[in-house]
Amino acid sequence: MESVTQSSKEENNVCPYTLWDNCVVFNGKWIQARQVRFKTKNNGQEGVWQSVHRNTKPVGAPADGVSIIAKVTKNAGLIDNGETAEQAAIRELREETGYTCSKVISQSVECFLDPGLTDDSQCFVICEIDGDAKENQNPKQHLDSTEAIEVVLVEHSKLLDYLRNMDKSIAVEAGLYAYAYGAHFAKIFGK
Amino acid sequence: MESVTQSSKEENNVCPYTLWDNCVVFNGKWIQARQVRFKTKNNGQEGVWQSVHRNTKPVGAPADGVSIIAKVTKNAGLIDNGETAEQAAIRELREETGYTCSKVISQSVECFLDPGLTDDSQCFVICEIDGDAKENQNPKQHLDSTEAIEVVLVEHSKLLDYLRNMDKSIAVEAGLYAYAYGAHFAKIFGK
Repeated sequence: MESVTQSSKEENNVCPYTLWDNCVVFNGKWIQARQVRFKTKNNGQEGVWQSVHRNTKPVGAPADGVSIIAKVTKNAGLIDNGETAEQAAIRELREETGYTCSKVISQSVECFLDPGLTDDSQCFVICEIDGDAKENQNPKQHLDSTEAIEVVLVEHSKLLDYLRNMDKSIAVEAGLYAYAYGAHFAKIFGK
Repeated sequence: MESVTQSSKEENNVCPYTLWDNCVVFNGKWIQARQVRFKTKNNGQEGVWQSVHRNTKPVGAPADGVSIIAKVTKNAGLIDNGETAEQAAIRELREETGYTCSKVISQSVECFLDPGLTDDSQCFVICEIDGDAKENQNPKQHLDSTEAIEVVLVEHSKLLDYLRNMDKSIAVEAGLYAYAYGAHFAKIFGK
């Protein structure tokens, strides 16, 4: 089980906690729930942490998934076996929006979606889309049979207002909201 | 069990899926793992979804937690029983950073940290800190005995560079990275 070796990063000298009794309390096809006991190194205070983990991360993959920032478009998808994060981003962008990436600008390190609860992770992949290219004139999605995705193009500077004015029955991902706040406050704070 | 009623939002007319066989596969003190069968409304394609849920959300709370954007400071904490998101933000800001909030500017709707995996959620609460006030001259944290938090002040326009140059053994939360990207691209794209 990976559950025992997974804590190696937390056990280096920087980590303020000692972990033990790591055990799997539920093991499904896609997710695994775990429980571990911990003690603070500075004062020996003990506690229990329950967390959840995807069982689908390919060996050697840089993260569980990718987030794609392609000017006004942001999508997320899981990295397939044998794929790099860049390949996953180009594929997911095409499948979920129909747009073809013309250039990958950069890629982030692995970062964690909900670290108090899970080690589920993603890389950000920054892409450029050539809106004048022939293949991007009438983009057509290539969705899996169980996916339901609507593509919405929003001007960058209007993203926060767009999210704020959306129908309240639509749930927004925190990462997209955080991105919109970052853009909003960059305008206000300037340098 | 809340697991059966929780899907009411997904079952309204906007939702492209029909859900059934919702069951709890692990129930711990802090988290619950669930499994539900789904079928697409448009073509009857079936699938199974495993997910995880916090057991700690107070009845009537607007979200599981809060993220606080206080100029250069961002923290997250769980909403306690009987607290509003605003009260939780002011309390967590004080406990985790030592800073006293001088004004709450705004609050987001509930948004979801890792929606493919869990319904764990947060509100963003935008705070102002009076850096000239006496109580903010030598801020002192009030941490729980098992918390380990270091406060780092970073210039808003330098946040993405700061994250990119951090020691690779330090894991970054995706929401903070997304915020930094938003600020970065707002500068590049302008209006």
